[in-house]
Amino acid sequence: MIGSGGEKILLAHGSGGKAMHELIESLLLPAFRNPKLEPLGDSARLELGGRELAFTTDSYVVDPLFFPGGDIGRLAVCGTINDLAVCGARPLALSCALILEEGLPMADLEKVVESMRSAADEAGVEIVTGDTKVLPHGKGDRLFVNTAGVGLLPEGRRWLPGTAEPGDVVLINGHVADHGAAVMAERERFALRAEIRSDVAPLNHLIEALLEAVPDVRCLKDPTRGGLASALNEIAAASAVSIVLDEEAIPVRGPVAALCELLGLDPLYFANEGKVLAAVPPRRADEALAALRSHPLGRYAAAIGEAKPFDRVPLSARTLLGSHRVVGMLTGDQLPRIC
Amino acid sequence: MIGSGGEKILLAHGSGGKAMHELIESLLLPAFRNPKLEPLGDSARLELGGRELAFTTDSYVVDPLFFPGGDIGRLAVCGTINDLAVCGARPLALSCALILEEGLPMADLEKVVESMRSAADEAGVEIVTGDTKVLPHGKGDRLFVNTAGVGLLPEGRRWLPGTAEPGDVVLINGHVADHGAAVMAERERFALRAEIRSDVAPLNHLIEALLEAVPDVRCLKDPTRGGLASALNEIAAASAVSIVLDEEAIPVRGPVAALCELLGLDPLYFANEGKVLAAVPPRRADEALAALRSHPLGRYAAAIGEAKPFDRVPLSARTLLGSHRVVGMLTGDQLPRIC
Repeated sequence: MIGSGGEKILLAHGSGGKAMHELIESLLLPAFRNPKLEPLGDSARLELGGRELAFTTDSYVVDPLFFPGGDIGRLAVCGTINDLAVCGARPLALSCALILEEGLPMADLEKVVESMRSAADEAGVEIVTGDTKVLPHGKGDRLFVNTAGVGLLPEGRRWLPGTAEPGDVVLINGHVADHGAAVMAERERFALRAEIRSDVAPLNHLIEALLEAVPDVRCLKDPTRGGLASALNEIAAASAVSIVLDEEAIPVRGPVAALCELLGLDPLYFANEGKVLAAVPPRRADEALAALRSHPLGRYAAAIGEAKPFDRVPLSARTLLGSHRVVGMLTGDQLPRIC
Repeated sequence: MIGSGGEKILLAHGSGGKAMHELIESLLLPAFRNPKLEPLGDSARLELGGRELAFTTDSYVVDPLFFPGGDIGRLAVCGTINDLAVCGARPLALSCALILEEGLPMADLEKVVESMRSAADEAGVEIVTGDTKVLPHGKGDRLFVNTAGVGLLPEGRRWLPGTAEPGDVVLINGHVADHGAAVMAERERFALRAEIRSDVAPLNHLIEALLEAVPDVRCLKDPTRGGLASALNEIAAASAVSIVLDEEAIPVRGPVAALCELLGLDPLYFANEGKVLAAVPPRRADEALAALRSHPLGRYAAAIGEAKPFDRVPLSARTLLGSHRVVGMLTGDQLPRIC
């Protein structure tokens, strides 16, 4: 880690947690410093003749390429669409850049490409430009995908402030940790993996429905790498509030909870790829929850916490026993290559 | 190759030549088929409230990371800027997605990031959004970079037709094959490598100057992977013309010509990263050449050929001896990982 004695890239630098934030803040932000580049924004904001555009990118290196509920292609399309949607933007177009390893079976590539097409159709977005590179055998790992996306803020909608205020209610559109658990179970070939499916899905229509119903949503964020815990820590830090979760209210599916129990891991740090966190003013919380629940991807939406005036700890959880535990950002590399 | 019995990805699928075109045309285009996706366009064209946006992406996997005249970072910034500029668009913003291999020296990453920043400054473009992923040691090759870019067509400028017409003069802004030769010489540690430097440069200001002086430029293309030969074959095919080159007029630096001679390779197939081909109506050729030459990156600009009514062969060259040779698209993988 920069500034802490190490001089090489570690797996933790890609975790979505603390080491990655340090790398971004110590190396990338100072180099590219400009007013549009923000460490916590899911998309950059470009102004263009009175309209606001969102622009974002992500590379996908998930291992395995195929897992219950999805594959690297679906992930690459949904992830970028979701990064646009959480800013309040409607996705306009995606790019798709493939890095292939020599020897990749053509059938695998065909499946991934078909899966990208189908996810893009589901979201109503087109893939309009692309690139293909090939690495000699042994210099890559089958297939990496990059997608970038351009979105447009609908006329009359303001760019979401991206911060929460004391009193705001924190909502999520369903069960947490499905994606991380599905990838981990598939990778380790656990017996129960058939019961755990990734939640990977394009959230643009769900988010559109939410923002139509409740335009004064304060903040949306997709809790991907680093999980719920890292995403809420980021929101709390950016908003200078303390967020208190109600642990009992956080939806976790039985098999996922069982896997976490078995491995001694916390589902709050597992990646999600079809979830969105919303901070909404308390008087609009019921409407927002109803809007989420009226969409198939929000059927299990729940209010899971509250923002309070900042009080030492950015994120904590009220446990089943009534005590409070501190929930820090992800440190280390609990789940490398999860997306 | 698809449709020719093979079932695995080959290095040639990333060459910029024939196998890559077959992969794109047989697999990617049918899957993503939509009116904005074009096999030959360097950028996709998005319409937005009466304005035209260009959107493009490229991944960079060049080996070695550092070579005389540049590195993977400079390449990643310039390549995407040039793909926007050849459509007539002014670059608005870039993204930068890094895939790092565990163990990459932090100092190498710092050099690459600094180089991206400096190339972006040179072009007057900002890097506004990014992503970082880390691969376990042995699953990647130090560092891959993806950049995507968004550009805007200035008001009053039309999107370049991208095709040439019979009679058009073909111009290039300087010496060919420098990038491919520099990377190859560095990789193979040839003694003469100190004399060969990559031409990698952002061409947006040069192209702006050309289009200001000669708005009726018909077609611009950057001859990167696959070299001059593949780019001109693409132009000829898209335009249904035959292009005849004057071999003697094509600028090639001495050490580059010597390297090609030594290896029995044709400089017309070597990658360029700071070159642009222009097809211009004959009555504007002198003005266009003057506009190119007035810019530091166009000092050695030359008229190198002419478009004629289609006559069996898309691209041919008049040799020093006065005979004509057919110049096909790149086949195979002359230079893997050149960009």
